[in-house]
Amino acid sequence: MDEPPPPTSPTGLSAYMAVSQLLGLALLATTGAWLGRYRGGVAWHSPLQFNAHPLCMVLGMVFLQGDALLVYRVFRHEAKRSTKTLHALLHGLALAIALVGIIAVFESHRAKGISDMYSLHSWCGMATFVLYLLQWLLGCGFFLFPGASFSLRGWYKPQHIFFGITLFILSITSCLLGITEMLLFKISDSYSHFVPEGILANTLGVLLVAFGLVVGYVLTREEWKRPPLAEELALSMDFKTLTEGESPGGGSQ
Amino acid sequence: MDEPPPPTSPTGLSAYMAVSQLLGLALLATTGAWLGRYRGGVAWHSPLQFNAHPLCMVLGMVFLQGDALLVYRVFRHEAKRSTKTLHALLHGLALAIALVGIIAVFESHRAKGISDMYSLHSWCGMATFVLYLLQWLLGCGFFLFPGASFSLRGWYKPQHIFFGITLFILSITSCLLGITEMLLFKISDSYSHFVPEGILANTLGVLLVAFGLVVGYVLTREEWKRPPLAEELALSMDFKTLTEGESPGGGSQ
Repeated sequence: MDEPPPPTSPTGLSAYMAVSQLLGLALLATTGAWLGRYRGGVAWHSPLQFNAHPLCMVLGMVFLQGDALLVYRVFRHEAKRSTKTLHALLHGLALAIALVGIIAVFESHRAKGISDMYSLHSWCGMATFVLYLLQWLLGCGFFLFPGASFSLRGWYKPQHIFFGITLFILSITSCLLGITEMLLFKISDSYSHFVPEGILANTLGVLLVAFGLVVGYVLTREEWKRPPLAEELALSMDFKTLTEGESPGGGSQ
Repeated sequence: MDEPPPPTSPTGLSAYMAVSQLLGLALLATTGAWLGRYRGGVAWHSPLQFNAHPLCMVLGMVFLQGDALLVYRVFRHEAKRSTKTLHALLHGLALAIALVGIIAVFESHRAKGISDMYSLHSWCGMATFVLYLLQWLLGCGFFLFPGASFSLRGWYKPQHIFFGITLFILSITSCLLGITEMLLFKISDSYSHFVPEGILANTLGVLLVAFGLVVGYVLTREEWKRPPLAEELALSMDFKTLTEGESPGGGSQ
């Protein structure tokens, strides 16, 4: 068996992580600035209830979802069980916050007599949320409690990773569609005159793309994937001997 | 050296390829149906010139770009040089068609006195097109003629692949933003009543996401990557011995 890797991060990973977190904070600040400066702020049970929707979606479906995907790169030398639990908890928190955001838009539509679920933004956004919830449930069922058989996990793991990144991209896309919709509803007359609100909201869109780009780069860079710890390799070999199945825990995540 | 792989496609790849091409054709048919049935069709030097924009962008930046990415999976047993040339040609054709689409929107805006480049769609779309052109030029320079040094190619190849998939995703995202913008400009009063045009254009959006999903799945599935041919492995080993650099040709593409 190889020696365990030294407990340091690969060159460059820390810098990319720092940039991702700065972009994440910039996302939240820009969303807050847009809603606070130009849209009257955020309040529940009021005409401002709608504004909770973009805030919750950017916080939950983008920032927290992105950070949940990154935990395997950051906590690369911790026990897998702990990292996995943190991954599930962050996604769970993201889902809860997104649910609040979805309730906000439905209640606000009902109060104002606006139809639901007719736009491309609503179709993409709702599909993304429902599939994200499903992915979370499947992830918990397969990998956390009680855990599926070794060979079933081995089959599901690459699907879980592919759809995880896909849902993150779809979340960002849905946010961009929402920004475009909101601008064309609220400032359709002045948007083409490069008014500050339009430029600020477009900038939020660019920041969302940049956050997705940096997170996607960190996740897909081969040499930054989490190496299996020595004890995981040993355990994986024991399992393999016992089951003759493939090794999901032994590969890098 | 290992034996060369038998000249067959991996199980399932052909089915996914067929689905991707059906989705691609469905994309074009739906775009044509939308423009033909509800937007008066397409014509140059007329008030219908704008309609060339969505048609060219879906054809060039989505369908052809997607197919250009897939050539390494389809032509997996052909000589790398031929596959690479086809990859570059398809991207080149995509770029040319997209350029026509961009000219259409600028000329149409000028004729109607509409501002350019103020919306999130235009920012995302233009950034994607410019970066796509840059990626194509870099790809030709590094890999096609005259070709960079072995170690430089080895460094650039993973970046080329990451940004290639990223630009494909950004192209689809820009199309979704364009659909939302066009619907809110043209049918803002009736969109919320689930009129057929709105449902058709939303369906186009869903088809774009589905095409991206299938192409992305085929591209990222590890066991479907193009295996190096026997002669490429031999060549790559000779180079490695000569240069002590990394092996870009030896890895799967």
